[in-house]
Amino acid sequence: MNKIRIGIAGYGNLGRGVEAAVRQNPDMELTAIFTRRGPEGIVPAAPGVPVYKTDAAASVAENVDILIICGGSATDLPVQGPQLAQYFSTIDSFDTHARIPEYFAAMDEAAVQSGHLSIISVGWDPGLFSLNRIYAEAVLPEGTTYTFWGKGVSQGHSDAIRRVSGVKKGIQYTIPVEKAVEQIRQGGQPQLSTREKHTRECFVVADETADKTAIEQAIVTMPNYFSDYDTTVHFISEEEFDRDHTKMPHGGFVIRSGNTACGDNQVIEYALKLESNPAFTASVLVAYARAAYRLVQRGKTGARTVMDIPPALLSPKTGEQLRAELL
Amino acid sequence: MNKIRIGIAGYGNLGRGVEAAVRQNPDMELTAIFTRRGPEGIVPAAPGVPVYKTDAAASVAENVDILIICGGSATDLPVQGPQLAQYFSTIDSFDTHARIPEYFAAMDEAAVQSGHLSIISVGWDPGLFSLNRIYAEAVLPEGTTYTFWGKGVSQGHSDAIRRVSGVKKGIQYTIPVEKAVEQIRQGGQPQLSTREKHTRECFVVADETADKTAIEQAIVTMPNYFSDYDTTVHFISEEEFDRDHTKMPHGGFVIRSGNTACGDNQVIEYALKLESNPAFTASVLVAYARAAYRLVQRGKTGARTVMDIPPALLSPKTGEQLRAELL
Repeated sequence: MNKIRIGIAGYGNLGRGVEAAVRQNPDMELTAIFTRRGPEGIVPAAPGVPVYKTDAAASVAENVDILIICGGSATDLPVQGPQLAQYFSTIDSFDTHARIPEYFAAMDEAAVQSGHLSIISVGWDPGLFSLNRIYAEAVLPEGTTYTFWGKGVSQGHSDAIRRVSGVKKGIQYTIPVEKAVEQIRQGGQPQLSTREKHTRECFVVADETADKTAIEQAIVTMPNYFSDYDTTVHFISEEEFDRDHTKMPHGGFVIRSGNTACGDNQVIEYALKLESNPAFTASVLVAYARAAYRLVQRGKTGARTVMDIPPALLSPKTGEQLRAELL
Repeated sequence: MNKIRIGIAGYGNLGRGVEAAVRQNPDMELTAIFTRRGPEGIVPAAPGVPVYKTDAAASVAENVDILIICGGSATDLPVQGPQLAQYFSTIDSFDTHARIPEYFAAMDEAAVQSGHLSIISVGWDPGLFSLNRIYAEAVLPEGTTYTFWGKGVSQGHSDAIRRVSGVKKGIQYTIPVEKAVEQIRQGGQPQLSTREKHTRECFVVADETADKTAIEQAIVTMPNYFSDYDTTVHFISEEEFDRDHTKMPHGGFVIRSGNTACGDNQVIEYALKLESNPAFTASVLVAYARAAYRLVQRGKTGARTVMDIPPALLSPKTGEQLRAELL
């Protein structure tokens, strides 16, 4: 059987995660890495995999079955996605929830025109969490769905801390409020404010001469990022920071508490506890690359999301195996 | 828009649950109930719904879009399923795991021949738990998946207790061993024996003259049902039994603990906490009836399982709504 030939566009944390994840899937091989700068200065962990400039991707498109685009959602994907969908069937992790409809439309247009298939917004949220929101709501039409994130590192909030004057290093953990989670697990359907769902915990290494009180005030009052939350700021040494705060754990819960028609309470919970957020996201992308490959083989084109994909297509096992072993 | 016309075959706990669940879904209506005995002695909760003998089902097949077969897996479904698939597109909850391959083959043959579609083994296990086993294994190819059931009532084990001489009433709860669950949640991948995963707790009302020690011995040493487990037997009054032990709660967990390629531990958990097992199972059946209806409209035929069904088909919402609201 031919292996599924995977390409990676973008070689940051997520791209390197995909490179590693491909190694765990014997039915796949990595055949190309594309970066903006090209091969200079990049040594792929997988020896022998050619590195190209992203600009030149079209010229080697025939070497790739599915291209996993590992760019960011803010500026990379809205441009790169539709461009690359002209030449490749793609997977991406576009995660700006509010802009998904317009991104989907752009990807659908590009993929339909070029005869390719693109699965967008793959990962865990959007992604596996979305699946659980839809399954739970369909099964329990009367109820409330809650999504909690954490405990984990929010990249956006960590970046915001680091932009505060006097901050040398900083990281932010999003933490679900345990009391709220427990209430829902016990069958409650509370109305919760932003503040009642999550707290934010920051670890900061300040410059030697910095005013720590001013830094703390700047963080906890920062609009959009922190002002709507109970935020705590811990000042720590650079040594402690480098020792304890360089990993990227994350996770969270999707919980639906609902009632079936005779009033019985039913609670559905999906939880992730991840030591490495990018490594896990990469693994989801790779599983969906398998599904995309199979849909391409069936002649399907256009944009899709995880909600459109039959679960069986993610697995290397046959239908017979799945029915016998996992059903 | 025309409503999806649902039929029910079998009017026990599950059938009545389906009848109630249809009321929670405004895009559906119940148009027929089929029972072995026919209309005598049956008063449907939904007024005006006609009741027929199952033998006569074929003659009113045109009034039903999707038939939900609510018979048992041991003797009903292996016969009824392929028979009814000659005339109806069907949903069932066939749950004898070991016999799924042969049941799938029989249903596929009947449905393909008659031009209908049948989704088999729908519910929570098999069903939602199966989905989570396949998603988790596809995303984390290196790891171990564990399924725990309970705390909840096992119908089969309760029946076994009631067959013991001297037992007037009896019920059995399956309980996951908390220590094992916690170990896996923390990232462990232990090898667990049957005894290490679940305990069994029995509540028994004994006949007045019965030998309680003999009853307890008969239960805890019963092969297949109890001898491989740590089982406790509580003798209680009939009053207490009727007050506290007539509900059918259930639930459980599917947990996969795995490692991504660079060794990071990642844990995926899916948990159900159900006040009523039959009401919840019925709700899952009804959601999959919507998916079946849509597949039939697209001209699809043959047997399917939940693993073959795109999640979006379960929801009454459009693709646009799902992408905007739930992705």
